[in-house]
Amino acid sequence: MHGFQYQSSLLRTVAGELEIALSRIFDQPVKIAGAGRTDAGVHAVGQVISFTAQRPSPIENLAFALNGCLSPDVSVRSAEAVADGFSARFHALERRYTYIILNRRERSATLRRFAHHAYRPLDLDVLRRAARDFSGTHDFLSFCGVLPDDGNTERTVFGVEIEEEPPMLRLRFRARSFLHRMVRVMTGTLLEIAAGRKAPDAIPDILAARDRRAAGATAPAHGLFFTGARYADFDSNATDRVF
Amino acid sequence: MHGFQYQSSLLRTVAGELEIALSRIFDQPVKIAGAGRTDAGVHAVGQVISFTAQRPSPIENLAFALNGCLSPDVSVRSAEAVADGFSARFHALERRYTYIILNRRERSATLRRFAHHAYRPLDLDVLRRAARDFSGTHDFLSFCGVLPDDGNTERTVFGVEIEEEPPMLRLRFRARSFLHRMVRVMTGTLLEIAAGRKAPDAIPDILAARDRRAAGATAPAHGLFFTGARYADFDSNATDRVF
Repeated sequence: MHGFQYQSSLLRTVAGELEIALSRIFDQPVKIAGAGRTDAGVHAVGQVISFTAQRPSPIENLAFALNGCLSPDVSVRSAEAVADGFSARFHALERRYTYIILNRRERSATLRRFAHHAYRPLDLDVLRRAARDFSGTHDFLSFCGVLPDDGNTERTVFGVEIEEEPPMLRLRFRARSFLHRMVRVMTGTLLEIAAGRKAPDAIPDILAARDRRAAGATAPAHGLFFTGARYADFDSNATDRVF
Repeated sequence: MHGFQYQSSLLRTVAGELEIALSRIFDQPVKIAGAGRTDAGVHAVGQVISFTAQRPSPIENLAFALNGCLSPDVSVRSAEAVADGFSARFHALERRYTYIILNRRERSATLRRFAHHAYRPLDLDVLRRAARDFSGTHDFLSFCGVLPDDGNTERTVFGVEIEEEPPMLRLRFRARSFLHRMVRVMTGTLLEIAAGRKAPDAIPDILAARDRRAAGATAPAHGLFFTGARYADFDSNATDRVF
């Protein structure tokens, strides 16, 4: 699968597959809005999408019908009717991502598509302290892949929590919205700090630099999971403990 | 990957990949013996293999060198020298398998290759009681795929434990050795009992029947994990909590 969003008519994307399935079920063209765009290789376990269809269909059976149309690498957990004008993209109050790291010397065959293998020892105290420097409202231009259409690179990070369960490490990111590749660049930068290749207090300077080259490498896509979005009266609240 | 053991020169197997890598490192043909043979689609996280090589090589670097030769879907955790004549296959005192089940109505895209989706509700009390009937020494012909070369289908099951962590269910099997497909047929049969499609006390009768048709369906390969083997002075002891 080549990420969430439409890229080219030759590549399968999650959004594209869902739109094809919904268009078939409702017998009309359906366009969806999603809470979290994910690049190719990124996983989503708590994705939320919304769409409008003119034709009524029993909502109770929609998830079941969709799973029947979709290939096994996409799974719909539930479907419900919402107020007119609701958008899974524009009305999300919080988005959550978890970056999963296998931190031991030897790689894992089973986890190779679900966790980034960081084979160097990491200083978790340094990692935790550095992660705190992301909280708050900042210009995240240094942590941005492709600029957003409106050019606004200011974002508010609610928090970055680190969970240690050796040999696994989970970095949990919460914000109203993120810039393109922002979580992966934040993760790559934190890993360089925790490995001693950048100063423990480097984050404020990197933010101030407003230059992508000041931050660390983009951590690989396959360790990243979109794990849920919160709305005024709903939270998609998925676990990042996949097994 | 097409399982652990050699099948045809056209199919990649874990054993074949390891033998190619070892033969390259030792510059001579190397044959391996493995603790647990796994069919295509079955995972192994605590596999043990042994081999004899005429040429010495520093054992400290062997795991690292092997991982350099192997594709990322095989990972070597460690290597150590053993007494002459040691066989990972013949000297194992206990082998452990875990069968992982996702027991909820909706499927999971992420787990589709790592857990069997049992969408029907299961009676776990019935499942636990039935699982106990496997313990001890029995003729497991009814639970055997392909007959072993020596025709002996008697095996001693040390225990079958059920762990519930909704929506996940883990069935843990321990025996000195298992017959071909034995864990998958035991699992398939237990699932039919827990779903009410076979009697709660069916296991003793199925064992007595000595007929594969008396048991349930073979549970799919992708939920099965080989998780370790115990030897006189070593246990490969891997976790079945992959994430």
